[in-house]
Amino acid sequence: MPGAFTVAIQELQELLGERLETSSSVRQHHAHDESFHLPASPEAVAFPKSTSEVSEIARICMRHHMPMLPFGTGTAMEGGVNASHGGLSIDMSLMNNILSVTSEDMDCTVQAGVTRKQLNEHLRDQGMFFPIDPGADASVGGMAATRASGTNAVRYGTMRDAVLALTVVMADGKIVKTSSRARKSAAGYDLTRLFIGSEGTLGIICEISLRLHAIPEAISAAVCAFGSVEGAINTVIETIQMGVPIARIELLDAAAINAVNQYSGTDYPFLPHLFLEFHGTQAWVAEQASIVKELAVENQGSEFQWASNTEDRTALWQARHDFAYAARATRPNARIFSTDVCVPISQLAQCILETITDIKSMPMSMPIVGHVGDGNFHVVPAVDPENEAEMLLIDSFHTRLIHRALSAGGTCTGEHGIGQGKKAFLAEELPAGVDIMKTIKHALDPDNLMNPGKVVDIN
Amino acid sequence: MPGAFTVAIQELQELLGERLETSSSVRQHHAHDESFHLPASPEAVAFPKSTSEVSEIARICMRHHMPMLPFGTGTAMEGGVNASHGGLSIDMSLMNNILSVTSEDMDCTVQAGVTRKQLNEHLRDQGMFFPIDPGADASVGGMAATRASGTNAVRYGTMRDAVLALTVVMADGKIVKTSSRARKSAAGYDLTRLFIGSEGTLGIICEISLRLHAIPEAISAAVCAFGSVEGAINTVIETIQMGVPIARIELLDAAAINAVNQYSGTDYPFLPHLFLEFHGTQAWVAEQASIVKELAVENQGSEFQWASNTEDRTALWQARHDFAYAARATRPNARIFSTDVCVPISQLAQCILETITDIKSMPMSMPIVGHVGDGNFHVVPAVDPENEAEMLLIDSFHTRLIHRALSAGGTCTGEHGIGQGKKAFLAEELPAGVDIMKTIKHALDPDNLMNPGKVVDIN
Ligand SMILES: Cc1cc2nc3c(=O)[nH]c(=O)nc-3n(C[C@H](O)[C@H](O)[C@H](O)COP(=O)(O)OP(=O)(O)OC[C@H]3O[C@@H](n4cnc5c(N)ncnc54)[C@H](O)[C@@H]3O)c2cc1C
Ligand SMILES: Cc1cc2nc3c(=O)[nH]c(=O)nc-3n(C[C@H](O)[C@H](O)[C@H](O)COP(=O)(O)OP(=O)(O)OC[C@H]3O[C@@H](n4cnc5c(N)ncnc54)[C@H](O)[C@@H]3O)c2cc1C
Repeated sequence: MPGAFTVAIQELQELLGERLETSSSVRQHHAHDESFHLPASPEAVAFPKSTSEVSEIARICMRHHMPMLPFGTGTAMEGGVNASHGGLSIDMSLMNNILSVTSEDMDCTVQAGVTRKQLNEHLRDQGMFFPIDPGADASVGGMAATRASGTNAVRYGTMRDAVLALTVVMADGKIVKTSSRARKSAAGYDLTRLFIGSEGTLGIICEISLRLHAIPEAISAAVCAFGSVEGAINTVIETIQMGVPIARIELLDAAAINAVNQYSGTDYPFLPHLFLEFHGTQAWVAEQASIVKELAVENQGSEFQWASNTEDRTALWQARHDFAYAARATRPNARIFSTDVCVPISQLAQCILETITDIKSMPMSMPIVGHVGDGNFHVVPAVDPENEAEMLLIDSFHTRLIHRALSAGGTCTGEHGIGQGKKAFLAEELPAGVDIMKTIKHALDPDNLMNPGKVVDIN
Repeated sequence: MPGAFTVAIQELQELLGERLETSSSVRQHHAHDESFHLPASPEAVAFPKSTSEVSEIARICMRHHMPMLPFGTGTAMEGGVNASHGGLSIDMSLMNNILSVTSEDMDCTVQAGVTRKQLNEHLRDQGMFFPIDPGADASVGGMAATRASGTNAVRYGTMRDAVLALTVVMADGKIVKTSSRARKSAAGYDLTRLFIGSEGTLGIICEISLRLHAIPEAISAAVCAFGSVEGAINTVIETIQMGVPIARIELLDAAAINAVNQYSGTDYPFLPHLFLEFHGTQAWVAEQASIVKELAVENQGSEFQWASNTEDRTALWQARHDFAYAARATRPNARIFSTDVCVPISQLAQCILETITDIKSMPMSMPIVGHVGDGNFHVVPAVDPENEAEMLLIDSFHTRLIHRALSAGGTCTGEHGIGQGKKAFLAEELPAGVDIMKTIKHALDPDNLMNPGKVVDIN
């Protein structure tokens, strides 16, 4: 709709000057995330620098009924930033100040546009780190908004656990602090957790207080190949059940290893692998590793191949983190279709094995990777979203996979969120829950201006 | 109001038979928790046995505008169960079935009336335990409702972390499942966390899936006396900052030790103490303990007095858990007034020391205990709620303490909740947040029937 929101855009321009963009290149850049979902451009893109500017922006949008779409780094997987209902993309990248680091409390407060790598770079000298690590260098705000996790979640938890407090701008511009920096609190409803995972549909996260962790005295990473996916998964399950506080335990099946070798120049054997990491004191790391090595041997795993120095370890995890890009690169001009189920770990082996059987019926390569210590795994085909026949095939595979996970007592998304892609699955998973979510959405954003069309539909 | 809700009570009687009680002794028993808040009897008490019965009860209450007050074991500290607006107390004690334990997933699903000791008794043979331990043998539903924690929270987290999923009955009788049993999920708004800490004001928690933990190979508990409270607190702060995953680290000041000695027959020296516990493998426990021992020595702590066998350890922690009763027993017919602030740990020493100075100006004994690894501590005078002058003095002390905690970036309640006692403090702590809470309460319980007058006031 050309000319829509003309007055709103004028007012925004008065507020932000050059930090209100309407060029088609900038709009197109904000029309999509890293997924296969079809792009949809916003009418304009705002680049606020402060919480109070975000609040002013919201007041203007509210007055003119202009949808607001928070934008972090656009790396998400369910089309959450796409302007499917038009409106204003609010790009948080200039809100990238680290406001405070309190080493005595092992926490920090940052603006939402700070990325996880920027934060860890800043923290390194102080002997602390922020553990949540989606493969992409995502913004902390986007990570909170999607309840993201990554390879470290098995030990350190997800964004749900990492966030102490948020400052959020509501649809009407009100600024809300959700909590204090205290480690725990029973002070009323858990607003912090309500906004974590709300994907920009309840408010715009502007500032975030985060728990940090001491960089462990010793870190050891290793790679272990298995003759079968079962062997790898059973090693994982036994490790978790023995209570070993492993820091990372990642599955890559043979197809995934293949994509990684091609993209990252590694030469792992064409077999299922576990990528592992142990954190602790020297002695404690050695003890953990020896327990897991024994379990791996019992499950026909190879010798551990250690990445002992920092560079080797960084390279190992960069290869793992780049996996989605590696999968995409297996085919020219492809987009990523990442499934994301998570099941109770007792169901993991069966769920993955049935999925592998299902994959055999598919005409394309469908590599599997997983944060398997949490029961979370991704099947990641590279797709051509414009190829309808192919998308239909993949859609029906996806539906089967999610039904498999739901009937195993699992969830349709372990970490990527609902976005526009999984609203129907959310309703299958939590039929009565969705009604409560809609009631909350309606109460907090009655005009449906915050990222409309995502997570739940109201009005 | 005699005769109020006569028709509702008749209908409830038809539904529940003898499990609907109107005798004054039963009503009086449900008129209060363990705190100083003045009792207020409900018109009747229901003892449901199933989620569907709770749903039927809610439908009846909704039709007749009868307030519903969930009741766990009545051990809470802010008058949350008191029928300040009249209504029906819904006692969950007959909903005490352990529905399933899945040892492969280290989780279980229980009815809300199961108590923490009952659950741990049941789990012991399976090598698992449930770590959240308020001093009292509280119900798991009440613990979820208050976002409770206890001595183990520094290692294992609070009810926020322990709960995987809930089944909740809403004010209108709808039954809502909030999540799956998967370890993590990004499926929509975090309804689980919304109900945890909602103190019966948003719905009645009927079933709960909980994370469990493997009973560690080795457990060592110790007691260490200090010449000063500072020495004890500094030991705690340094332990946390070094990243030692200590399982328990509890402060008792000299006055608290005195109360414990009298109540539990122990003979600890009249000095501030830390009670400590380490969990892990043999080697790892030894390593942790030696690190903390060194820190204690540097802070002028005594030798560690070890409680090595299970009985000694149980006795040690029972004495700690009974502390609130010990404090009450220091004075005949007294009630417990437990303050409950929690601050960032960097502020803990100063906050406690200023509080000790403040206590010196008070005419009564005011022992201090604390889950200090979390920055959470309680000052627990035994009071006579009918003595107005005394209550005024204590109230003003309490206000000063909370203002001290809030200005240190802390919270007015670390674990006990808001109940009827702290609504004004909640509004001071999170002024804009309270408006959001009210909006949510209004949306989910428009007739204000769920535990009215607690946490937030609407209508
Ligand atoms: C190679 C690769 C690997 C990945 N691996 C993982 C992984 O291991 N684990 C994982 O969880 N994810 C993973 N992802 C997905 C993605 O990185 C995460 O979802 C991440 O949290 C998105 O952050 P972002 O800043 O890019 O958010 P965006 O994509 O910009 O936005 C995502 C959603 O959050 C909303 N949002 C963004 N910022 C805010 C804000 N400040 N306030 C309110 N709402 C906001 C948006 O409106 C949108 O709905 C991966 C992606 C890639 C490309
Ligand atoms: C000696 C002693 C020591 C204590 N130590 C601690 C401690 O270390 N840490 C701590 O956190 N607390 C502690 N407490 C406080 C208390 O034990 C906790 O608050 C506990 O969680 C209350 O559980 P309950 O079953 O007794 O709940 P109740 O007192 O029965 O109820 C508390 C609140 O929860 C609501 N509620 C109860 N059940 C449900 C349900 N099924 N659904 C919805 N709402 C419900 C009630 O309406 C009320 O508002 C202690 C208390 C005592 C007496």
